[in-house]
Amino acid sequence: MSFFSSRWVDRPDHVRELDPDAPLPAGFRASGVACGLKADGGLDLGLLVSDPSDTVSAARFCRSGVLAAPVLTCQQRCRLDSLRAVVANSGTANAATGRRGLDEAARVQGAGAIVSRAEPDQVAVASTGVIGVLLDGRLVVAGLRHAQAQLRPGGAADFAAAIRTTDAIDKHASLEVELPSGTVRLSAQCKGAGMISPRFATMLCFVQTDAKLSAATANLLLGVTVKRSFDRISVDGQLSTNDTVILMASGASGVRVEAETDDELRLGEALDALLRQLALLIAHDGEGAKRVGRIHVAGGDPDAVGRVARAVADSPLVKTALFGADPNWGRIAQAIGGAMPDSAPLDFDISIEGVDVCSHGAARDFDLPALASAVERDEVEYDVRLPGEGAEAEIFFSDLSYGYVTINAEYTT
Amino acid sequence: MSFFSSRWVDRPDHVRELDPDAPLPAGFRASGVACGLKADGGLDLGLLVSDPSDTVSAARFCRSGVLAAPVLTCQQRCRLDSLRAVVANSGTANAATGRRGLDEAARVQGAGAIVSRAEPDQVAVASTGVIGVLLDGRLVVAGLRHAQAQLRPGGAADFAAAIRTTDAIDKHASLEVELPSGTVRLSAQCKGAGMISPRFATMLCFVQTDAKLSAATANLLLGVTVKRSFDRISVDGQLSTNDTVILMASGASGVRVEAETDDELRLGEALDALLRQLALLIAHDGEGAKRVGRIHVAGGDPDAVGRVARAVADSPLVKTALFGADPNWGRIAQAIGGAMPDSAPLDFDISIEGVDVCSHGAARDFDLPALASAVERDEVEYDVRLPGEGAEAEIFFSDLSYGYVTINAEYTT
Repeated sequence: MSFFSSRWVDRPDHVRELDPDAPLPAGFRASGVACGLKADGGLDLGLLVSDPSDTVSAARFCRSGVLAAPVLTCQQRCRLDSLRAVVANSGTANAATGRRGLDEAARVQGAGAIVSRAEPDQVAVASTGVIGVLLDGRLVVAGLRHAQAQLRPGGAADFAAAIRTTDAIDKHASLEVELPSGTVRLSAQCKGAGMISPRFATMLCFVQTDAKLSAATANLLLGVTVKRSFDRISVDGQLSTNDTVILMASGASGVRVEAETDDELRLGEALDALLRQLALLIAHDGEGAKRVGRIHVAGGDPDAVGRVARAVADSPLVKTALFGADPNWGRIAQAIGGAMPDSAPLDFDISIEGVDVCSHGAARDFDLPALASAVERDEVEYDVRLPGEGAEAEIFFSDLSYGYVTINAEYTT
Repeated sequence: MSFFSSRWVDRPDHVRELDPDAPLPAGFRASGVACGLKADGGLDLGLLVSDPSDTVSAARFCRSGVLAAPVLTCQQRCRLDSLRAVVANSGTANAATGRRGLDEAARVQGAGAIVSRAEPDQVAVASTGVIGVLLDGRLVVAGLRHAQAQLRPGGAADFAAAIRTTDAIDKHASLEVELPSGTVRLSAQCKGAGMISPRFATMLCFVQTDAKLSAATANLLLGVTVKRSFDRISVDGQLSTNDTVILMASGASGVRVEAETDDELRLGEALDALLRQLALLIAHDGEGAKRVGRIHVAGGDPDAVGRVARAVADSPLVKTALFGADPNWGRIAQAIGGAMPDSAPLDFDISIEGVDVCSHGAARDFDLPALASAVERDEVEYDVRLPGEGAEAEIFFSDLSYGYVTINAEYTT
């Protein structure tokens, strides 16, 4: 099956899929080991290194007021435009751990600098796991020695496994991208089964390319594509404390991607398709999820269309209807109303899978059996039109199922 | 069992509980009949009348941008300070029904005026049921003839049954209130199993007293007490299209309640206890709910404390933990962070059932088995402290259970 499995993501013509376990783009090596953080002895420590000293990078993090220690460390103690290594662990989030959590993250960063032969401020740290549990830095430091010995171009699969938690769907990929100036490679390892997994949070995504670009270009491309991918998914509307996305460009292919060229455009298109598909895999892997919906809202007020899209995507009523394959547009109307207080009577239209079910705020006759069968697919499309023109918003969201309740209620601290 | 069953509501000393089916306060009559809106033939049409022509009233509605036709009719076509009758139906919400929905609501209002011997603009209309289904005014008009014939002081139970939908817990009560100037009666009929029931929305509450008060006093008392009750509950964070609360004062007891007197204070205390307990019954009756939580947030910024309280109450992760009796404070920390973007590192404390679990943003040691047993109660208390002083917020919320998913996913349109 193609990596680009969603109806909402097209593989650009100049992008070719490689085996996800193909060697990393030139210049990169990775590994994944078990250092004892996961109780079951599984892989829980990943190390990713870019060998060229002129590697550039860009990063994005969640905006929570309760940021995990590794995120604060990246933000405050890293040169985010010239990262050369990532140390990522699963098993504990190292969030809400205060001063000691920051100390442990700093320790990990220091050890990461030794094993990757980089400066400490070129080493990003990332964690995913239980909130409120301090990271045991000694375990990580010991594990990094093994991780260093295992570093290899073919280490992407182990690295991806080491950052995984409850993920049921694999989320790493490798692409070849034809640019006007030459061929480059693009790969990514991602984790996230919803914004939040049992008792812990997080999506992490690490992206590598051997294209040669400036840090400013990396930052621009990552900013635009994250906004169109990881910023547009909702499993349960819950913001994590640890979300981290890092793009690193080794330049080792020798193919230069200059700003405002077709090379940049094509690389951006490839990155966009890659991140959107990974984001959709997170939504499909949302805890207990059976279906994924896409809500698209158009109208004249950018704030309003964004608010309505978020309200529909986060509504437990819309989510349970999606799970139950119920084309219940009344719940969409209710979510719209809730997001637009004091605006009644509001002029709005709703269509589901292209069928108009509500026009100018009032019910329409439609072929219910046909629509009921259309919403039984894996991916369901909802469209809302608000007054005015010029603004639109889109969010992908997973349903709300028994599985979500099981995963989140039946684990006890 | 006492009506005042919640740990968070105390019966004021000057309030005495009566049988909920006791006659309505002097001046009021009510009835409930089956007019054919509910498919199962159950009671679905309630009529409430205050006979004194100088009856005063006050009303509150939800602020949705998609307001139901009956709510728009009340807001645009009623004298809300001198209502004398209510016609309320279950079975259809008459929401998202456009111009025709307004016509049907007007028809019901006109018929209601005839059977209650009031002016049309003294007749409030209210509906609860499926969104997007037009109210069949002919059925209601025919039913009102029977409802008129059944009007009686002892009709509260039938009226309460007629406005009920999926409610499992009965929500009507009758109180006797000792005021310095004499004894008055206070009764209420309420419905709501969450903000939202299967395929339809709504909480309705109708309150009667035979105290003699001005419309301004009625409005003041209702405004303050609704803010402390129905405005503070969340089953699924979903705003209804139809919420309606109406207080009517017949004056028939002859006991005058003047503004800024002990009479007003005492009546207000009774109304406050009544509405808070009814609101808590809605939360306990939340779809599939097993437990109710109370989140209390203190701090210096009124906006922030309100936002954090709402984020905790609406978090599906906090709700599933409440359902699973899991004292998982990491999810509270996550919800706080999500509600306070760009404020990291945030100084906050969390306690559950009086046990400090997180101080200054970092985990604390505590007696986990003792706390785990404390959160197995029906009502669980969470406290959050943000920086600063002077502001606080409180919300009561139900958990998220398999039952919620069943109720909301397994009904199909």
